[in-house]
Parts: sequence; structure tokens; C-alpha cells
Amino acid sequence: MKNRNLQIRDDGGLRHLLSISGLTNELLTRILDTAESFAGVTEQTVKKVPLLRGKTIVNLFFEASTRTRTTFELAAKRLSADVLNINITQSSTIKGESLLDTLRNLEAMHVDMFVIRHADSGAAHFIASNVEPHISVINAGDGRHSHPTQAMLDMFTIRRIKGPDFGRLRVAIVGDIMHSRVARSQIHALNLLNTGDVRIVAPKTLIPAHCEALGVHVFHDLQEGIRDADVIIMLRLQRERMLGALLPSEHEYYELFGVTEEKLAVAKPDVTIMHPGPINRGVEMDSEVADGSRSVILEQVTHGIAVRMAVMSMAIRHREETPE
Amino acid sequence: MKNRNLQIRDDGGLRHLLSISGLTNELLTRILDTAESFAGVTEQTVKKVPLLRGKTIVNLFFEASTRTRTTFELAAKRLSADVLNINITQSSTIKGESLLDTLRNLEAMHVDMFVIRHADSGAAHFIASNVEPHISVINAGDGRHSHPTQAMLDMFTIRRIKGPDFGRLRVAIVGDIMHSRVARSQIHALNLLNTGDVRIVAPKTLIPAHCEALGVHVFHDLQEGIRDADVIIMLRLQRERMLGALLPSEHEYYELFGVTEEKLAVAKPDVTIMHPGPINRGVEMDSEVADGSRSVILEQVTHGIAVRMAVMSMAIRHREETPE
Amino acid sequence: MKNRNLQIRDDGGLRHLLSISGLTNELLTRILDTAESFAGVTEQTVKKVPLLRGKTIVNLFFEASTRTRTTFELAAKRLSADVLNINITQSSTIKGESLLDTLRNLEAMHVDMFVIRHADSGAAHFIASNVEPHISVINAGDGRHSHPTQAMLDMFTIRRIKGPDFGRLRVAIVGDIMHSRVARSQIHALNLLNTGDVRIVAPKTLIPAHCEALGVHVFHDLQEGIRDADVIIMLRLQRERMLGALLPSEHEYYELFGVTEEKLAVAKPDVTIMHPGPINRGVEMDSEVADGSRSVILEQVTHGIAVRMAVMSMAIRHREETPE
Repeated sequence: MKNRNLQIRDDGGLRHLLSISGLTNELLTRILDTAESFAGVTEQTVKKVPLLRGKTIVNLFFEASTRTRTTFELAAKRLSADVLNINITQSSTIKGESLLDTLRNLEAMHVDMFVIRHADSGAAHFIASNVEPHISVINAGDGRHSHPTQAMLDMFTIRRIKGPDFGRLRVAIVGDIMHSRVARSQIHALNLLNTGDVRIVAPKTLIPAHCEALGVHVFHDLQEGIRDADVIIMLRLQRERMLGALLPSEHEYYELFGVTEEKLAVAKPDVTIMHPGPINRGVEMDSEVADGSRSVILEQVTHGIAVRMAVMSMAIRHREETPE
Repeated sequence: MKNRNLQIRDDGGLRHLLSISGLTNELLTRILDTAESFAGVTEQTVKKVPLLRGKTIVNLFFEASTRTRTTFELAAKRLSADVLNINITQSSTIKGESLLDTLRNLEAMHVDMFVIRHADSGAAHFIASNVEPHISVINAGDGRHSHPTQAMLDMFTIRRIKGPDFGRLRVAIVGDIMHSRVARSQIHALNLLNTGDVRIVAPKTLIPAHCEALGVHVFHDLQEGIRDADVIIMLRLQRERMLGALLPSEHEYYELFGVTEEKLAVAKPDVTIMHPGPINRGVEMDSEVADGSRSVILEQVTHGIAVRMAVMSMAIRHREETPE
Repeated sequence: MKNRNLQIRDDGGLRHLLSISGLTNELLTRILDTAESFAGVTEQTVKKVPLLRGKTIVNLFFEASTRTRTTFELAAKRLSADVLNINITQSSTIKGESLLDTLRNLEAMHVDMFVIRHADSGAAHFIASNVEPHISVINAGDGRHSHPTQAMLDMFTIRRIKGPDFGRLRVAIVGDIMHSRVARSQIHALNLLNTGDVRIVAPKTLIPAHCEALGVHVFHDLQEGIRDADVIIMLRLQRERMLGALLPSEHEYYELFGVTEEKLAVAKPDVTIMHPGPINRGVEMDSEVADGSRSVILEQVTHGIAVRMAVMSMAIRHREETPE
């Protein structure tokens, strides 16, 4: 509810993007439609559009992530915006300046958008609650909470392949649900698009409590979980996040939950294979699956640019076209 | 005298900006007037002007400062220049190449401007003495010596609020004068604009010897020093610069020199509160003052972009418009 | 042979630039001619051309080199391309993603060119063997193998001064041939341009075995080696590369192989002095030679921008102008 107010303007336009939860089906669909127009742009020879010329987008990364930073930087540049990369760990915070004073300073330089990456859940929400009206905030991943642009590009990818009717789809999310901000965002997005059957498949130690409240079916057996699936989304095994011994070994994980062509026999013949990257080959799946004809893992990366262009341009341009 | 020759062209135009000392009232006023035109630009929807399209500005930082680097980078991009960020500590100097050879190499790439930040006083002056005629040098802070664009944005901020007649103003600079390049530059700028009464207010241990020679009045008591002040500029307490025990404790400093609403009662009712940032809340002042209606600390940041745009464009464009 | 196929398109256009070896005289000459047109551009007031507007060039540096990265970044920006700097040591590889998966991801973002710097010989060749058809790869230095744009800018510099007929030239390369990727590339380029007499001059410990197979004359005495030379190219003494005691001391090296004005008396009176930089003054040569009227060391830097603009624009634009 709080998110909804923060994320959506009174007239329904996009204000901030903090999490999928709080968006409407209508707004999410509008973002995917806009991304569709940019997906065409990036396939052409000249890939740049002047939509955000003269705008300044600040990548404010409190947690290093070359991969995510690169996709946002590229999306911003293809919209002709200027990009400032600020790694806040090297910045004035080490001189004792508080986060809010840092934000106030950047706002005073008349920047237009903060793209936030932070190790703490709720960081983007906190910042959005405190910025001035002329700034939009995009969450590029906060703790275990949310990674909404990743979920959106996944939805975009599914829609391109399977069509707009999510009601007839069975989607299985496989892997470390508990530590994954991506999984949370995906579940919310699939629900928002009225997906017929959303399943999560993982060992008991990697599934958070009260998971059924999210409206998903929980499986602890891979073969049961992916039976007749139209889409399988694997999650990255976040080894560095697992404190202690939630898993016996990577090898055993692969034996039980790693996806192989053989195990895929129980899924639909045209099942779509997805993964947010980077893949641990031989852990979440073998290379035959990752590089096979049903894998769309690299298309996801391509669509990530289009989806981020859509979110950035909608949040910034709306403000100007609609007097507040 | 040496500075004057280096900084001003034969026809009075800006060549380098190394320190306020050596500028003329006329040239400083011209820079502030030019900044006024850019201040308007940054308040519009499209903030970019094509004045320096095709020009290359090199941020040559020998000392890390995300904050200062960001303001120069933003100013350069809003003038449509290309920006190269070079952190010289990671650069070829570690291979044994001398500073001058590094400069010669960058010059040979036909860049147009060096923005220099260096821990040694006089670094920018040394570089300006050695660059080729087609390069301008801007001092972005050198040791304890000078930080001229900071002083200029302070003057710009005062002029916007109090009007162009500095002769009727009483300005008090409060804090660690001894270690502050900002204070040195501010005093020179205030004198150049013929400010009526310039005061410095600090404990005896933080005031350099022979300070009166700069034409300022020295106070060791805050209440006396800010009495009837039109403007109070607080300095950041550079804790990392103070070798040894010049101060008993931060708390005691705050008791004696920290500015509160209560202590402000002796100043003019419309006193303007300034600080170059980042603030140490509860040390130089309390938050009520920092965030109060008389504080223009964030306006200073905004004006910093306009002032840097003015300096950069005047130094580069003059060369082209006036055949030498 | 393998290189040739990778580097040249079926119709003779430039596809990748991996090494001089494998190029044709005709293609190298065409690159130098194109660089000539850009050399004019960089001497004008407005230095930017819109040839690569909307293109994305990725500087993929597996080995830090501010100097080389800067020249490629500047060349790309002067062609109006967008540049992404990725230091791969800080990137997703540390999360266990393989190099090829990193490349696939960047390709999926529809970038147009990888500029590769790597400590391993053959890295650029490996990457070029594995990229998709729409990507060009430029080798910005790989191990001890090759540094083709450096050799090209050297040829460009010689041609500007001595004219296009290399057949009448005697060129001496002096220094650490064994550890120098630059020397390898220079020898191939000089041979490709049919240089009359190519000499290498170094102590026995710094000359690789079977060197004569490259078609060069080997000298161990500086005075003999540079006698009647039209061009002397000194190499940087890569102290950090020399494992163990190949050299008695820097001082002794200077005594025997360091170039001074006095020793230059045996060369042609109009001998041209070159060095790829950064210079070790008092080791490879003294300052009188480095800064003297016959030195073109800084012109080499300037020409480096033009040559890189030529290579980048030819590799990218060819693809579009010629339907494949």
C-alpha cells in the first residue's frame, strides 16, 4: 500500500519503481508494451533515441555489480541521457556525511533519476520516501527484497514467446527461493499477470516460511515441480549468501535440483528455459540445457536493455508531459 | 603577480583558474554574470547547451574526491563536452613516468582542459606553468592553498540573495581557518568584491599566523564574531587534517563554536547560513540551523554547477573567439 | 593464416584487428590513409565526427592500463560512439562466470566492438574466434604477442615524415625485443610496407631466438646498429617483466644502449627518434634526445588517436555498408 502510493502517480503514471508489489496489471502491461517499442530500436543499426537528451541519471551503487550497472548505463545512454556512476563506498559517506545529505546534494545538482543498488532490503524504498518531487528512484536490487526490472524482463521474455495470456501458463521457479530478491519479484509479477500456475521448487532449507501465502505451489521434488511446465526459471545459487550449511554440497544440489535434458522430459516439449545469470554451469543446470534451443537466457539480457529503457523513460517523461 | 599573468590573458579574458588571488574584480564579476545565465539553464527542462561540443575535459585527480569530481563532470556534460576521468594514482605514474611526461601525453591527444585536484599546495600552478597554449587549467583544490570555484559559488550565492553591493555586508567565516583552502579563497574573493567587513571566528589554535594581513577581523568568541552578521559561512571541521591535539574534543568545539538557532539571535534577522559541505551535524552546527529557512547550503551546490560551467566555457571559448 | 581469415572479410574489408601479421599491404595502407583524414579532424576546432553515433564500444580490460584505455576511449568519443569501460577483474568473473558467458552477455546487449587488453598472448584472438558476426574485436595488447595499433601509429608517423616509400628506409629498433609485443608488431608492419633495412639492436639476453627468421638484421652494438639509420625506435625497458637478472643494471644498460646526442652522430642527420612511451629518462635515452628537435614521441601520441579512429570506424562501418 505504501509502495503503491510511492510508485504510482495520481493519474496512474509511473513515479518510482521500487518493487513489483504495488504495481497494477495495467501499469505493468504498459511498461511491457513500451519495452516492446524499444526492443525494436535496439535491433536497428542506429540504436539511440533522443528521448532523455539533457537528463542526468545517477547510478548510485552501494554494492558493486558491474553487470547490473552496465545494463542501466547502456539503457540510459541509448535514451541519450548523461550518466554519472557513483560508487558510494568510495564517496563522501566515508567522510561521515549521512546518506540523506548525499542525496540532498545530488538533488541540488538537478539530476533526474537515482538508480539504487544496496545490500539492505528497503533501501530504495527509504530513498524514494525522501527524494524531492523532481527525482525518480529505480530499484536495481535491494538486499533480499526486490529486483523489479529483472522480473519485468523475465515477464517480457515470456510474453514474447508464449503470448499475452499468462492464465494458461504453468511456470516453475527452481532454486534458492529463500535468498533471492529475484524470486520474490518474479512471483509478484506472475501473480499480477494472472499466471495460471506458479510453482516454486527447492529443498526445504531454501524455501522461506509462509510461502504459500504468496499464492504459489511448493515442491521439493524437481520432477514433480517441473511436470508439464511451460516455463522453467532457474535461480542462481547464491553461494556467497548462504551462511552456514543449508546445502550438503553443490554436487548433491546438482544431483537433486540441477536441470538436465533428461530431467526436462517431464516438462512440456516447448518448455522455455530461463535464468537471470550469471549461470553456475553444472550446478543449476548443465551446459546442454543452458545453450540448448529452448534456452532464452541471452534473450533475457537483450530484453533487459529494452525494459530498463521503458522504465527510465516512462518515469522521467511522464513528469514533463503531465503538469502536476 | 605570477598568478595574475598565468590566469588572465592580455586582453583580460580568463586563461587558467588557479586561485582567487590574482583575479580582478572585473573578471570575477564577469564570471558571476556568466554563471547567472547558466543558473537559468539548469532550472529548465532541457539542461544541456552545446557550447563545448567536441571539446575534451580531463578530470586529473591526484586525490580522490567523488563530490568535487561529480560537480565538474556534470558541469562539463551540460556544456556537451566529453569528459575523461583519470585517477592518476592508478595511472602511468606508477610505472615511473614523470608528471610532466603524463601531461605532455594528454596534451598530444588534443584535450582542451585539465581540472586538477592535488594534495600539494601549488600543484595546479605548477601544471599551468607548464602546459601548452591550447590547454586551460582549473584548480579543483590544491593542498591548503586554494579552491577557487568553491569561493566563487559562495560569492554567487551571496550576490543572488543580498544583491551586488558587497560593501554593506558583514560576513563571518567560522571554523578551522588554518587548514582550509576554502577559507583562503573566500577571504580573497570577499576582499576582491570590496566586502564591508570580513571576519574570521575560530579558536586560537585554528587561526594561522599573520591573519590580519589578509584584511580580516579576527574573533575567538563566536557570539562576538557573528554579531550583526549578514552572512555566516561555516567551514567543515577537517578532522583528518588535524595532526595532533589542536582541539580538545568535537563536543567542546560544538559547545564553543557550533552554531545553534539560539546563538544566531545576535546576528541579523535575515542572516544567510552557508557551508561548503559535507556538514558534520552536531559539530559545526545543529540540524535546526542546517535545514532551517535561512540556510542556503543546498543552493550552494546548485550554484556550483553554474559557476563551473561559466569558468569552463569562458576559459575554452575565449581562445577560439579571440585569435592570439 | 588463421589470423588472416579472422581479420579480413571476404571482400578485403577489416573485420577484427588482432595482429599486424595476417594483414595485407593494401589493407594496412588503407587504414593509414583513413587515419590521415582523421588526423586533420583532430587538428580542427571541433574534433568530433558523427560516424559511430549510436554505436557502443566496450573497453574490456583484463589488465589495467590507463594510458591505452584513454586513447581508445578518446578515439571512440571523437567518433561519437558510446563507451563502456569494464575492468573485468572487478566484474562478474569473480562470481565464477566464465569469460565466454561474460562475452555472450555483452553481445546480447547489442554492443558493436570489444577493445581487449589482456596479459595472456592470444587472448584477443581467442575472443575474436568466439564472438558473433556483428561484433568486431580490437587487440589493445595481449601478453608478449601483439599490439597492432601501436605499430600502426608508428608506421603512420614514419610515413608522415619520410613519405610513403619505405623501401629506401633503414629503421633500427633498440631495446628489449624479447619481452616486447610492440617490437613484434613493428617488425611485421615494417616488413609489410617493404622497408629496405629493418634492424634490431639489443644485448644478447634481450633478443629472442630465431629472430633472423623475421627478416631483420640483429646487432648487439648500438653504434653499429644505428649507423646511417633514418629512423630509430626505442622500446621501453619493461623492468617489471624481466624475471631475474637479464640485465646487469639500468646504469650499465644506459651506458651501452641508451641513446644520447653524441651517439646519434653516426645516424643520418635527419634521423627520426621514436618511443612508444612512457619513457624512462636516463635509461633508454637522455632527455636531450627525448625532447630534441628530431624526436617525434609526442606526435606518435597524437597520431595514435587518428589511427584508432580509423581502425574502429573501418571495422564497424564496413559491416553496414556492405550487406553480408
